[in-house]
Amino acid sequence: MGHSDDGGVYRLTEDIALIQTLDFFTPIVDDPYTFGKITATNALSDIYAMGGQPKTALNIVAFPIEQLGPDILSDILKGSGEVVSEAGAQLIGGHSIDDKEPKFGLSVTGIVHPEKFYKNIGAREGDVLVLTKPIGVGIQTTAIKRELLTETQMKQVVDVMTTLNKQAAEQLKPFHPRAVTDVTGFGLLGHAYEMTNNHSVTFEIVAQDVPILDGTLDLAKRGSIPGGTKDNFNWLEENISFATDLSFTEQLILCDVVTSGGLLISMDEKEANAYVERLNNLGNEHARIIGRVIRADERAINVI
Amino acid sequence: MGHSDDGGVYRLTEDIALIQTLDFFTPIVDDPYTFGKITATNALSDIYAMGGQPKTALNIVAFPIEQLGPDILSDILKGSGEVVSEAGAQLIGGHSIDDKEPKFGLSVTGIVHPEKFYKNIGAREGDVLVLTKPIGVGIQTTAIKRELLTETQMKQVVDVMTTLNKQAAEQLKPFHPRAVTDVTGFGLLGHAYEMTNNHSVTFEIVAQDVPILDGTLDLAKRGSIPGGTKDNFNWLEENISFATDLSFTEQLILCDVVTSGGLLISMDEKEANAYVERLNNLGNEHARIIGRVIRADERAINVI
Repeated sequence: MGHSDDGGVYRLTEDIALIQTLDFFTPIVDDPYTFGKITATNALSDIYAMGGQPKTALNIVAFPIEQLGPDILSDILKGSGEVVSEAGAQLIGGHSIDDKEPKFGLSVTGIVHPEKFYKNIGAREGDVLVLTKPIGVGIQTTAIKRELLTETQMKQVVDVMTTLNKQAAEQLKPFHPRAVTDVTGFGLLGHAYEMTNNHSVTFEIVAQDVPILDGTLDLAKRGSIPGGTKDNFNWLEENISFATDLSFTEQLILCDVVTSGGLLISMDEKEANAYVERLNNLGNEHARIIGRVIRADERAINVI
Repeated sequence: MGHSDDGGVYRLTEDIALIQTLDFFTPIVDDPYTFGKITATNALSDIYAMGGQPKTALNIVAFPIEQLGPDILSDILKGSGEVVSEAGAQLIGGHSIDDKEPKFGLSVTGIVHPEKFYKNIGAREGDVLVLTKPIGVGIQTTAIKRELLTETQMKQVVDVMTTLNKQAAEQLKPFHPRAVTDVTGFGLLGHAYEMTNNHSVTFEIVAQDVPILDGTLDLAKRGSIPGGTKDNFNWLEENISFATDLSFTEQLILCDVVTSGGLLISMDEKEANAYVERLNNLGNEHARIIGRVIRADERAINVI
């Protein structure tokens, strides 16, 4: 219930460590198949953020089978199963209980070499910061519930949430990232703050370089802001210096809770340019450099 | 949502397979610390039933933190953590969400040699059947909710649910069990039925030899019977021949849903005698031979 990591690493042998993570939540979109895809993509994200290879998944199902019937559940499981297969993992079990409010999630296991997994600390002065998916997901999914989202916006946010970090992780292999994490519940600035390792360095983030889903500012202005986003802002506020020309809404967007977000990577600038170019060439037009790491300044993060 | 197994086995290398299982439920006792212990004991049970060694655990928490406060949750986690440690496993993560009705569980991973794990099928004509813990758990925990349980009964059922199958599994190592399972939601007869492998053999179970928690019959007569127990009976009825002197209530008890039950083992008779003697000498007075395996008869199970 705090600002801790969801997953863990366990050394099994000299050359195999398990990466395990577990995630479940209530539906954030109406379509059950899409919800299943989002949930699995999100659960698998931690494995990729640590440089691991997904191997197994177990389903976590709490569902009002009498009221909603088996078809909806079966669509959720279908969406989830497709993503688990796409990741090259195998679904090997799970548990279902009856529950008034449906919830779905997965417990996922991946493997990695015990000396070669990525950590979310280790960012070094002179590094640049890369983000591989746009933010604004929390604001946009809140807008879905309020029926404020256009079809194009809906398609875009669903695409983001159902795109595995597989490609972003695989393309990172030839490089030497110093710190990697995936952007989820704490928002871009929350995960960035964790990456500063208790303000050991300062992250300078260029607000206008951060990829943001189309229409996010407008939706936020119309009040479509999740409670968790405000919580993130309140938790982070004293550690961040925001450029004076940023509105409060723009500050909130940078703290917006994300489901199934992209990788945030601290790495050498030359490597970052080559990495981002690769991703862009492969069709990920969102990936870009969003800032750099400087010597520890007054605040852990300067948004400029 | 069916009669399927909760866990799975995944071959990781030539000599390591992962056994993974996931379980969570709403509180079945009032005391949060005890509930945590029961949940962890139950979740770890599958690993022991397959002959594995528990390695890691992840928490699954759905909790109304505002209403119930953090102390209750922290007691649940304390109880669970103690059992995970006792099993020699490490808690490496988890996920918490806010929920009106508290639920707690674990996703557990163990390892086993890929050629040496126990299966729940393979029982052979001439084997005998061993059960290592008493049944009646569903009826007794339903009686808790109705405030019908005496303190002595409460202590006994809690002891059963918080005793790991660790000792039962470790003592089994020198022997050559042909089939092993743990008795949980489908009840003794439900798990026994699965062990007959679609009626490939028939199990002859001696009703008076089955260890049953003190007072179970009386509580059942007073109506303290879980819905799941009746479901098990209805599902199993046509596959079982009950001795004519068994009352309907006695039949229900043999189908009673179990939380964190014992191992049910099909093995050679001489080995079974030696195994049961070992467990009895180590202080498990419940373990005993409850029946034998015969050639496939008219029904999959004869209760005599």
